Parts: sequence; C-alpha cells; structure tokens
Amino acid sequence: MRPSRRATDEMRAVSFERGVLRHAEGSCLVKFGETHVLVAATLEERLPPWLKGQGRGWVTAEYGMLPRATHERTRREVTAGKPTGRTMEIQRLIGRSLRAVVDLERLGERQITVDCDVIQADGGTRTASITGAWIALHDCLSWMKARSMIPAIPLRDHIAAVSCGIIDGEPRLDLDYAEDSEAETDCNFVMTGTGGFVEIQGTAEKTPFTGAEFDAMVALARKGVDKLVDLQKMAVA
Amino acid sequence: MRPSRRATDEMRAVSFERGVLRHAEGSCLVKFGETHVLVAATLEERLPPWLKGQGRGWVTAEYGMLPRATHERTRREVTAGKPTGRTMEIQRLIGRSLRAVVDLERLGERQITVDCDVIQADGGTRTASITGAWIALHDCLSWMKARSMIPAIPLRDHIAAVSCGIIDGEPRLDLDYAEDSEAETDCNFVMTGTGGFVEIQGTAEKTPFTGAEFDAMVALARKGVDKLVDLQKMAVA
Amino acid sequence: MRPSRRATDEMRAVSFERGVLRHAEGSCLVKFGETHVLVAATLEERLPPWLKGQGRGWVTAEYGMLPRATHERTRREVTAGKPTGRTMEIQRLIGRSLRAVVDLERLGERQITVDCDVIQADGGTRTASITGAWIALHDCLSWMKARSMIPAIPLRDHIAAVSCGIIDGEPRLDLDYAEDSEAETDCNFVMTGTGGFVEIQGTAEKTPFTGAEFDAMVALARKGVDKLVDLQKMAVA
Amino acid sequence: MRPSRRATDEMRAVSFERGVLRHAEGSCLVKFGETHVLVAATLEERLPPWLKGQGRGWVTAEYGMLPRATHERTRREVTAGKPTGRTMEIQRLIGRSLRAVVDLERLGERQITVDCDVIQADGGTRTASITGAWIALHDCLSWMKARSMIPAIPLRDHIAAVSCGIIDGEPRLDLDYAEDSEAETDCNFVMTGTGGFVEIQGTAEKTPFTGAEFDAMVALARKGVDKLVDLQKMAVA
Amino acid sequence: MRPSRRATDEMRAVSFERGVLRHAEGSCLVKFGETHVLVAATLEERLPPWLKGQGRGWVTAEYGMLPRATHERTRREVTAGKPTGRTMEIQRLIGRSLRAVVDLERLGERQITVDCDVIQADGGTRTASITGAWIALHDCLSWMKARSMIPAIPLRDHIAAVSCGIIDGEPRLDLDYAEDSEAETDCNFVMTGTGGFVEIQGTAEKTPFTGAEFDAMVALARKGVDKLVDLQKMAVA
Amino acid sequence: MRPSRRATDEMRAVSFERGVLRHAEGSCLVKFGETHVLVAATLEERLPPWLKGQGRGWVTAEYGMLPRATHERTRREVTAGKPTGRTMEIQRLIGRSLRAVVDLERLGERQITVDCDVIQADGGTRTASITGAWIALHDCLSWMKARSMIPAIPLRDHIAAVSCGIIDGEPRLDLDYAEDSEAETDCNFVMTGTGGFVEIQGTAEKTPFTGAEFDAMVALARKGVDKLVDLQKMAVA
Repeated sequence: MRPSRRATDEMRAVSFERGVLRHAEGSCLVKFGETHVLVAATLEERLPPWLKGQGRGWVTAEYGMLPRATHERTRREVTAGKPTGRTMEIQRLIGRSLRAVVDLERLGERQITVDCDVIQADGGTRTASITGAWIALHDCLSWMKARSMIPAIPLRDHIAAVSCGIIDGEPRLDLDYAEDSEAETDCNFVMTGTGGFVEIQGTAEKTPFTGAEFDAMVALARKGVDKLVDLQKMAVA
Repeated sequence: MRPSRRATDEMRAVSFERGVLRHAEGSCLVKFGETHVLVAATLEERLPPWLKGQGRGWVTAEYGMLPRATHERTRREVTAGKPTGRTMEIQRLIGRSLRAVVDLERLGERQITVDCDVIQADGGTRTASITGAWIALHDCLSWMKARSMIPAIPLRDHIAAVSCGIIDGEPRLDLDYAEDSEAETDCNFVMTGTGGFVEIQGTAEKTPFTGAEFDAMVALARKGVDKLVDLQKMAVA
Repeated sequence: MRPSRRATDEMRAVSFERGVLRHAEGSCLVKFGETHVLVAATLEERLPPWLKGQGRGWVTAEYGMLPRATHERTRREVTAGKPTGRTMEIQRLIGRSLRAVVDLERLGERQITVDCDVIQADGGTRTASITGAWIALHDCLSWMKARSMIPAIPLRDHIAAVSCGIIDGEPRLDLDYAEDSEAETDCNFVMTGTGGFVEIQGTAEKTPFTGAEFDAMVALARKGVDKLVDLQKMAVA
Repeated sequence: MRPSRRATDEMRAVSFERGVLRHAEGSCLVKFGETHVLVAATLEERLPPWLKGQGRGWVTAEYGMLPRATHERTRREVTAGKPTGRTMEIQRLIGRSLRAVVDLERLGERQITVDCDVIQADGGTRTASITGAWIALHDCLSWMKARSMIPAIPLRDHIAAVSCGIIDGEPRLDLDYAEDSEAETDCNFVMTGTGGFVEIQGTAEKTPFTGAEFDAMVALARKGVDKLVDLQKMAVA
Repeated sequence: MRPSRRATDEMRAVSFERGVLRHAEGSCLVKFGETHVLVAATLEERLPPWLKGQGRGWVTAEYGMLPRATHERTRREVTAGKPTGRTMEIQRLIGRSLRAVVDLERLGERQITVDCDVIQADGGTRTASITGAWIALHDCLSWMKARSMIPAIPLRDHIAAVSCGIIDGEPRLDLDYAEDSEAETDCNFVMTGTGGFVEIQGTAEKTPFTGAEFDAMVALARKGVDKLVDLQKMAVA
Repeated sequence: MRPSRRATDEMRAVSFERGVLRHAEGSCLVKFGETHVLVAATLEERLPPWLKGQGRGWVTAEYGMLPRATHERTRREVTAGKPTGRTMEIQRLIGRSLRAVVDLERLGERQITVDCDVIQADGGTRTASITGAWIALHDCLSWMKARSMIPAIPLRDHIAAVSCGIIDGEPRLDLDYAEDSEAETDCNFVMTGTGGFVEIQGTAEKTPFTGAEFDAMVALARKGVDKLVDLQKMAVA
C-alpha cells in the first residue's frame, strides 16, 4: 500500500488555477497533491544577446523554492550567493521542455520568461512546474494574440511531465515526498500531448534498474501524461 | 479623490489567512488590498553563534519578492549574487519590529525565523509583512505552547505597521503603488497595540516636509494601526 | 551626567577641514568629537544608464569604514564580497539627503559621487557624513562654477543631520558611542537649513517610545541642526 | 555516412593510460577519439560534515574543462565566479554514477574525490569522464588495498557510459562533436558491467523522439557499454 | 630635471605621525611627499587555523585605497566583490616584509594585522606602506610590552622600502606618479636596517634593463633605505 | 648534494612538445623535470575595451592548476569564487613577460590569450609557464603568418625564466619543490635571449640575503636562461 493509499498507477489530485497573478501576462497555481507551484509567464520585448537579429524568439525558465516550502526550512539561495546545482538543473529542464513545443519563429523577436516558484513541496516539484508552465505559457500567448501581437498561438503541442519510481521492486506513478526518499529508482518523463518524448531522466538511487523495470515506468508515465494533458485541455478550454 | 476612491484616513481591505503552509510552525497569507505577502515562521533549535549560552532566544526575519510580484518582472536576487540594499533594509526592519514585543528570555535558547515573501506587490509590502508576521509568529509560539515547550506565549504586545504619505499637500493613510510613486513624502510607522512607537521611517521623496505635516501623518498612522491590531485580535481569537 | 559631561542639548565639538584631498573636486574632513569622516566629492561626466538623455544630473553617495576606525577591528567588506546591510542603508540615506537640496536639472548631465569614509568612529558616523558631505558637495559645485561649467551653485538649501536618543528616560542630543550602545531609542534626523525634514529614522532599541518622547527628540534635533548649519555657513563663507 | 566514417553502431577508438599523475592515488588519461580527459582520484581522511560518524565513506566528483579544450576558447569558470549549470549537472552525474558501484560501508570513513578535467573536447566528455573515472577509482582503491587500509577493493561492478543520438532519423552510437551539434535527440546512458541502468538522460534537442527510437538507442548503448567494460577489464588486468 | 626638481638620488619629504588612531594598538600616518598612507596595527588573541598550537604568532597585512586617493576616482573593491590582483600582490608583499624582521616565537600565539589604507596616492604607495607599517607594528609591540604581555619588543631589525626607476636611461630614486607612469623600468626594494635584502621586484615596463642599470638602482635603493631607517629611528626614539 | 643529485648550476631536464592541442592556434607541453605545464595560445579578433582603436594588439595570460597537480589535492579556485592572490600574481607576471618581446603594433588589433595550466607541479611552475608560453605564442604567430594575417612574426626576442635560491648558504639553479620549500631565498628571473632583464622577483623566505648572494643568483640565472633559449631555438627550428 502506498503511503497516500493510491493505486500504483494513480496520480495525485491535480489542479490548475489560472490568472492568479494580476501583473503577469500568464499565470497558474498548479497543484499535484500537496505540491503547489506558482507559475508566472512574463513577456519581454528583448532577447538574449546571442539571439538578436535572427528573426525568432526565446522561452526560458527560472525555478525557485520558498524557504519554508519544505519540511525543514531551506536557506535562501541568495544567501549562498548562487543557485544550487539542483536549481540550475531544474530550470534548464523546464526551459528545454517548453521550447520543444513552441514555434520560436512565429513568436517573433521576444522573450517569454516562465518563473516557477514552489510554495509548498511534497515531491515532484519539477514535474508539476513543467505541467503548470504549459498553462501559464499558453495564457501568455493568448494575451499576445488578443492584442494582435501574433496571429495565432504558436504552440505545436501540449507538454506535461510526471515522475515514476521503483519502490520495493514495484513501479509506481507520481511519487510524493515520502516515496521519493525511499525509492530505489526515480525517473522523470517529459512528454508531448501526442506521445513523443522530450526528456527522460532516470537515476538509480540505490540499485541499478533493469530494462524491464524501465519499460514498466515508461508505461506508467504514458498513462500519467495522458491524464495531465486531458486536464490541461479542460483548463484552457 | 484617491485612485482607489478611499477616504484619506481609510485603510485598504486587510485580511489574514492563517495556517496556509502545512510544514511551517506558523504561517499567514496577509493581504493589504492587492499586496499579498506569504509569511512563514520557522522554529529552529539553534542560535546565531554570538548569542549562544546567554539563556535567551532570537527572532529574525528574511524578506523576498517573487519575480513577477511587480508590474515589470524583477530579476531574482540570486542572479545578482546578493540581496539589494532595499531587501536588507526591509528584513532588518521586520526583525527589529518583532523583537520589540517578544520576551526573548522566555523564548529559551531557540531561534524563530520569519520569512516574508511577496506574492503580489501593490505598495506597502513592508508594512503588510510586519503586520502579518505578528500573526505567524503568534501561531508559531502557540504551536510551541501546545507542545509544552513554553508555559505561555512570550509576546508582550501586538505589533503592526502602516505607511502614510503626503500627496498634493494632503496626508493620506496606507498608500498603494499608484500613490506611493507620486508621494512627496513617504513615512512608515511601526507601532505596538498600546500605542508605543517602535520604528519611524520618514523620507521626503521630493520636498522636505514640515512638522505639522509629520504630526498629521502620525495621527493617521495611529488610526490605521488601531484598526490593524483589532483585525489581528479577531484573527487569533 | 552624560559620559562626555555634556548638557543633554549640547552637541560635541564639530569642525570641518576643507580641501584635504588634492585630487578631489571637493573634500572635507568632518569631526563630530572623536568621530572623523573623510568626505570626497567627485565630478564625473557620465550618468547611470537609466538617467541618460533626460537633461538632468545625479548625486550619489558611498560609505565605508576603515577596518580600525572601531574599538575592535572590523573585517573589510571586500573580504565578505559584498557590503553589509548597514553600509547600504547608510549610503542610500546620504544620497537621498543630498539630492533633496540639489537642483539636478541645473547640474546638467553629470554625476557627483560623494565618498564618506570613516577614519575613526565614536557614534554618529552617518550624521557626521551627511553634514560633511554638504560641504564637499558645495565645494565641488564651486569648482564647477569657477570653471564656468554651471552659472551658479545649484543648491537650494543646507542639509545637516544629527542623532537623538532616550537614555534612562532622558532625551539627549548627538549621542556618542558610549551612549548609543545603551540608548533605549535612537533617532536620526536629516533637516534643511530652513527647518524642513528630509529624513526621520527612529528605532526603539529596547522599549517602545511615546509621542511625547518623540516630540522632545524633534526639539533637540532642531537645535542641533541649527547649530550645524551655522557652522557650515561659517566654513564656506 | 558519419563524419568520422564509422558504422552507426561503432565506438570511436578508446584508450586508457593509467598512472599519469605522480601525486594522485589513482589517475587515468582516457581518450574517446579526440576527446581527452585527465582523471585523478584523491583519497582524503575526511568526510563532508553531514556524513560523519556513520561508519561509511563517500565518493564525489568534480569536472572542469581547460579553456582551450574547445574549438573556441571558453572563459574560465573562476572568472564568472561560479560553475555553470552544465558543469554542476555533469559533476553530480559522475559522482552518482560512481557511488552506484562502490560499497561505501567497506570504504570506511574516508572520501575519494575524482577530478575529471577535459584537456581536449570533441563530444562525449561526460561519458568519457565516467568511463575513465572508474579506472582511476579502481586504482585508488588498489593503492589503499596495497597499504592494507582496506582488505579488498570495495567495487561491486564496472561502470561505463556512452552517448547515443538520432541524426536524420538514424540512431547512432558515441556521437562526436560534429554529430552532437546536429542531433535531433541526444541520450546518455550510464550502465554497469552486468547490464543494469544507473542513469538515463535523454533530451530531444529538436523533435520529440518515439518509443521505438528510444529502444534503438538503448540497444546501441548496451553494445557500446559492453565494449567499454571489456576495455576497462583489459586495462586493469 | 625631475618633475619635482629633486636630484636623481633624492627622496621626497618623508614624515611619520604616530598614534593618529585612538582605538588602534599602534598607528601611523606616513607621508612620502603627496603619498599619504594611514597604517593601523591591531593585536588579536587569535590565529589563522593552520597556525594554532605551534607556539608562535603571525603578522599579516591588508591594503586598501580610498576611492578618491587617485586622480580619477577608483571604484571600491567591494563593488567588484573581490580585491584586484594588484591589491593582493601588495598586501602579500607588506606581510612578508614585516614577518622578515619579527621574531614570531617571541610574539606568542597572537596575530597582529597591519592595515595600510592609502588616503592620497602619488606613486610609491607600497613602499610608503611598508615603511610606515614598521612604525605602527613597533608601537603595537611597545603597547604589548607596556602591558607585560611580552618581555621585550620582538623586532630583529628595521624594515623600509623604496622604489627606483630608469627614465630616459637615467636611474632615479623614489619615483612619484608622474615619473612612475613614464618609467622604462620600475623596481621596488625592501631592505633591513643592516642592509639585507628582503624583497626585490623589478619590472621592465617598456625596454628590458641591463645588469649595469640594475646595479645603479640597487645603489640608489641602499641610499634611500638608509635615510628611511634613520627617520624611523628618530620617530620612535 | 641536491635532492635531485644535480650540480648547483644544473637545470632539470627541459622539454617542449609542440602542437599538443588540436584546436589551439599554438600549444606546447613544457616540462621542467616533473613540473608539466600545458600552454595554449588563442587568437581572438577582439580587444579589451580600453585598447580599442589604437592600432595595436594585446597579449594576456591566464594561469591555472589542476586540483591534483600537487602533493595534496588543491581546491578548485571556482569553488572559492575567485582566483587566489598567487594565481593573479603569476598570470600578471606571465602576461607582462610576453608583452616585453612582442611588437604589439605589428600584431594588429587582435588579442592573443595564453593559457598556462599546470598538469603536474614540482616547483618552478611560473618559470616553466613563461618559457613554454614563448613557444606557444611563437607558434600562434606562425599560424597567423601562414594565413597572411601578418607579414612576419612580430617577436623581438626570446623570453625565458628560471628560479634560483639560497639553501644552506649555497646558491642553486632551478629549484624543485623539495628545495623550494626549504630555501632561505627564492628569486625568479625573466630574461630575454639577448641578456636583458624583464622581471626580477626576489624574496627572503627566512633570512635577508646579501648583495653578494644576489649577484651569485644573477649569474646562475644567466646560465639557465641561456640554456633555455638554446632549447627554444632548437624546438622551433
């Protein structure tokens, strides 16, 4: 029995609350159970220097965690003077994932920055961030379309993410913190609405995993992402 | 007429939502109109090195702002590698204000860190932070009392804060962002529930202010703080 | 009896030595008793990026303290890699105070940077800095006028600063270090030569202060600033 | 035809030169074609603070690149004051990979730091680093065994890594720089000598990849890792 | 003719003002013409970690320059977040020079930090710093002897420093800024009172120098240091 | 007898391996006995901002040390966030030394950066770096000449460097690590092929040195540099 009494292939309760920040062009409070992430998409009429004059835009992401999102208080990164390796890894992942479904040429010479700030953490903050970021990005692009800055929303597909793990030899979908800390293997999958893979990050925390175990996690991830994409569709409908 | 159609001595709608973070010993989402601050109080069984072995505790505060709390996106402080002068000024102010009403001897050799993170900014983030921090601190101390860590809540008084300003020669209470940016003078008052002053910070942004103008702002501040303290009392009742 | 045997409304011996640095456009060694601050005003034909092309200039300040200005040696800020919160607070205060009396339009598109470096500290370094900075700024502007860079000195008024405190319930003017460290309340007042307030910073270090106590400090501050402005007038006559 | 004229399932020439650094307890110059990495394993009788007193050791890794390892000169990380996100990602990956096959209890309360410094880069620096790091780690553990610090070499298995990619729809093994920069998908596999997965990192650089494409890369990776493990065995025989 | 109308073997006017800082155990304002350096020696009952428990003390130095010591204002090092290479070079040189004449065993397990802060710069700030530092160090050690912390002053010799240069093929003693910036060669000599060399730093700024030129500079330096040591003797007599 | 059984005026075995890095315009692996430095010269069509538009180029150097080049592992400088004073001193020395023999006007408005990375350290890393840097710089300039970017190699002379020391009162040439750590005096000499001095850095580590000792070191250095220049000539012939 999982600590949350879920079936092995069952997601936590997932919700999206759109438009939660009055200043942002797009925003979303995404919840995967007790993991809550506030996502804000900001449109800026500027580009990183290396991209100027090429006729296309850019989407990037930043990730942060409030100090008391966690069980124990986490020191602010500004106190150490630099982001941790974990933060950099996650924000690069979110950015790459979003760019996989945006048509940057049709965005024009602009940058959208997607800020994912974890208000409360209970495992899966990066997968919740990516899944909610798609909503905030979509709403930012809608905002631009409503102002005739772009003729159509330049999104090629949905993007959503979920984690899977092996615990006591059993593959499980969407680990919470209690499971995450005892998993032998932890895999994050970022996939499109049409079933393509954008990112796979699998790590054997304790014991190496087998090909069969990996295939079982892939199957769970497909199921989870299908559910998340359905929820995204309902949210922006 | 003020942009918000309030009377010159009228506060914005103020609310406190307690217990919003499941991991924190005390927490509060405080709203002064469209200014929203998430406050978390964390109890730690450790002390800054210079305070060890003196038989008393410590209360400190940190302040942050999510990048898209503001009209334009603000760069994360970790990107610059250090907090801005404004951030340091504000978090020192919050810490001093709280310590003015806590009996540190009765707290014991422990530290409470109060994190104030601005989710949305519309002027007065430091006054909202202080006012909400009192609630989170109170609830953290209640949590300790419930666990028999302390025999009673070691708070000597309420603490609350409000800003006043002079606009077109007119003293006004609780400025929002639109007023703050055009005020000739901006004063922040931190006061106790029994009417004592803990901090006064007055700045002539454009024209020096007179003694009479200052006295008018003091009177407005008294009125605002009385209201805030009443609301705090209702919130923790 | 005060440790320095002064009356409660008596300033320390104050002196200004002008032109102490051969390279600076304006400079002043200001002494408030044993507090000695070296002030240098530098004219530069450049502006911060956000101010360019607006037809007006800028005055800014930086503050530092030599490591052995203090009783115990203080670590250099460069060793920590960043200024302390206290330093940032003080240099922002000095800059705002000076700008309150400079006509930035008449200064033209130039920047004056006022460096205040504490050679020896005995309380009141920020008030001595502001008071001496007015002299160095004045002399920098005279230097410009002598070279026909400006037709007249664009200063609207004098600016001077003094601290007051409550010790054993007694309001006192111009605290030295011995008093500062035992004061219940510490207030800094920055005022113009014509009696306007530019900055008020009052802090209850131990016990909240009353309205009556605050009024008594205001009265002492007025007396101190009047004296300081008289001394400034003699110095530049 | 691949730029290097290799078959799609063909590794570059791989070599290990052991004992290249006279001071290090274990060292190895590993070459994957024109990618050259110098690996040094250092034994230290100390532990990170969070691991002390638990009766087990630690293996960690650091990664660097000489400025002119690359086509264009790369700025030294010390100049920016902090490692890039890429560097942190890679060194965390190397450390996790090595720890997957070390019995930390049998290592005792000691730390081995494995430094991987890229002398020349032509794609696959992280996979060459991991594969060579196993050799340096092995030799460091032999050095300890020879001095009776440990009764046996506490390695449970080999560890090796290889990249695969999809280029023009074709899965290929062990990409060099020319291929890496035009690949649609880039996957890194870290596997044990007995065929277990330790890390999978797959990224769709341009187009999402399918399950079938991923399976083809897994098959190539198995083949590459088998070859690398054979070469490791010969090297330490 | 030299810009200062001095003879080629003539020092600038040199003076030492002792005891200028009330808090420091030893202090000295040293002037080499228009180069003015404030030196403070601080006694601390602590040691760097690597020196603890060895029965001997340590002397170290730090060097700084006020922003407007120079013709053009120099940015504060704290703004860049780290000392420049030049600063580190100079403070290491001062520390080594002083340690060459201190008997660290007889100092006991204590550290003396000598801060050299340039108030005004006109060439030769490092040589003035070393020469003045000997005075401040001497006075700090006298202060300790007066308090019976040490039975005698543990100084084995005087230490003084001077620069020489080649300008238009002519060797000259004690360059000021105007000469320093046009010198072909610039050499700094640190010597003891009995004629031993402690440091020689010679740099060909434009043309390599010959052995004969170097010998001529050595002869000038001997003459200059003899003069400086005589002045030190008079100062502490 | 020296630890290496060399005569007092005998250099270690010196070798230059050219062209060791495929991407660099010039490169050299220089060995002074067990001290091995990898030098890479990079040509860039850009200049530091302060040099633009003056019709001449620039040569600069950077210096690094791999963590396990040394007996004990040395922490990476990026971990501390800034280069040590020693590193900055050395890289400034290498840059100045090279510029002394390059005709910067004839180089044109380009920059050559010479990276010296110590692979293995056994004393004399700075002298080996300078001596090998001349080779890498020469080869970079040849590369430019071969591409008709410059009509001739703009080098006025050779440059080479060697250390000398006094051990037990005996002057010795080219100290290795064992000698360096027990030397009373340590001098580095940078000289041209025609016998001019470019840099002299002499330090009394323990006892001040005499003029006669210094002269003996100069004579040894001349002998060593003559040998190094002969080897450079053979290497590039």
